[in-house]
Amino acid sequence: MTMSLWPDVQPEAARRLMLAAVQSFATVGFHATTTRDIATAAGMSPAALYVHFPSKAALLFEISRTGHEQALAEIVAVTAGAGDPVTKMRALVENFVAWHARERTVARVVQYEIRALPDREYQVVAGLRRRIEQAVRSVIGDGVHAGVFEVPDEKTAARAVLSLGVDVARWYSERARKTPRALGREYATLVLRMLGCTDSP
Amino acid sequence: MTMSLWPDVQPEAARRLMLAAVQSFATVGFHATTTRDIATAAGMSPAALYVHFPSKAALLFEISRTGHEQALAEIVAVTAGAGDPVTKMRALVENFVAWHARERTVARVVQYEIRALPDREYQVVAGLRRRIEQAVRSVIGDGVHAGVFEVPDEKTAARAVLSLGVDVARWYSERARKTPRALGREYATLVLRMLGCTDSP
Repeated sequence: MTMSLWPDVQPEAARRLMLAAVQSFATVGFHATTTRDIATAAGMSPAALYVHFPSKAALLFEISRTGHEQALAEIVAVTAGAGDPVTKMRALVENFVAWHARERTVARVVQYEIRALPDREYQVVAGLRRRIEQAVRSVIGDGVHAGVFEVPDEKTAARAVLSLGVDVARWYSERARKTPRALGREYATLVLRMLGCTDSP
Repeated sequence: MTMSLWPDVQPEAARRLMLAAVQSFATVGFHATTTRDIATAAGMSPAALYVHFPSKAALLFEISRTGHEQALAEIVAVTAGAGDPVTKMRALVENFVAWHARERTVARVVQYEIRALPDREYQVVAGLRRRIEQAVRSVIGDGVHAGVFEVPDEKTAARAVLSLGVDVARWYSERARKTPRALGREYATLVLRMLGCTDSP
């Protein structure tokens, strides 16, 4: 897991707490982790943790929110840019898959512990998830409109594209034969075929 | 979750314990669940639980082993039968996706708590997973050999096929617009395209 995950989180102690929380949530799950576990792993006292985060749920929310915001930003950077739908979809899948392979530990927390969020926080993250799905769906819609994609159902197709990327976090490990980037490229080819792309290699 | 999950588990008390364990593992995770939680949810004493399972890990193993054996049996029933690779792949994806949608609670435990298994038990389950992947890969290989599939890498393609099915357990809910069976049919079409299938609708 890279420290580049949260470039904007300040001070350094807050970032250390988020890293420790991710490790513990990914290993034993949110519910089996105590704030004491997190503080200890970050080399701090439980009281020092509360200076930065009011609760364990606040830590999970911060991890989940920033993880989803990063995924959304990466996707929007592609979809809002120049390029035809095929080029955009290829770049989108390459980035999304590579991120889930590289940042698989934080991705597991972001994807699998979402149900542990309190209601209000869950709604914020659910809103980000809808925007991610909508961005993917709009590239598919543009491609269908342009006649380069053909799918039975745009919503199901968008879900399948994201699913392929998300599930990489579950199975990818440092023993995988392919680099995150190489896997992303190969998955992009598979996705374009899935979308009925007529001008893909 | 249906009681048909473990038709062979006897006595009824053991099956009740497995159901209670699945619910708790899926809700708060393996590590945050105690044997007392499971026994209480099954209407039994902790001592009564130990009559059937020596430990919480033994319960997880039984859930994981039977879940994987069922998935393997369903896949092998298709792959060992008659039919061309396209027909087999379609049936395989339909069943695999529908199972993960219908049995999403047990599927989440089976897929996400695998790292909590003790080493020896993990190896047994890993062996079943390799056989599942091998069965899918062999249908892909047959299709490539027959000239009806064309993929850049058979191993990656098999992984992607299984990934699409597994991830259904994460996002599918009773609010989904499609039935497990309808979703399975639609995913089968997407998968056949992904495999470069030349004679699919």
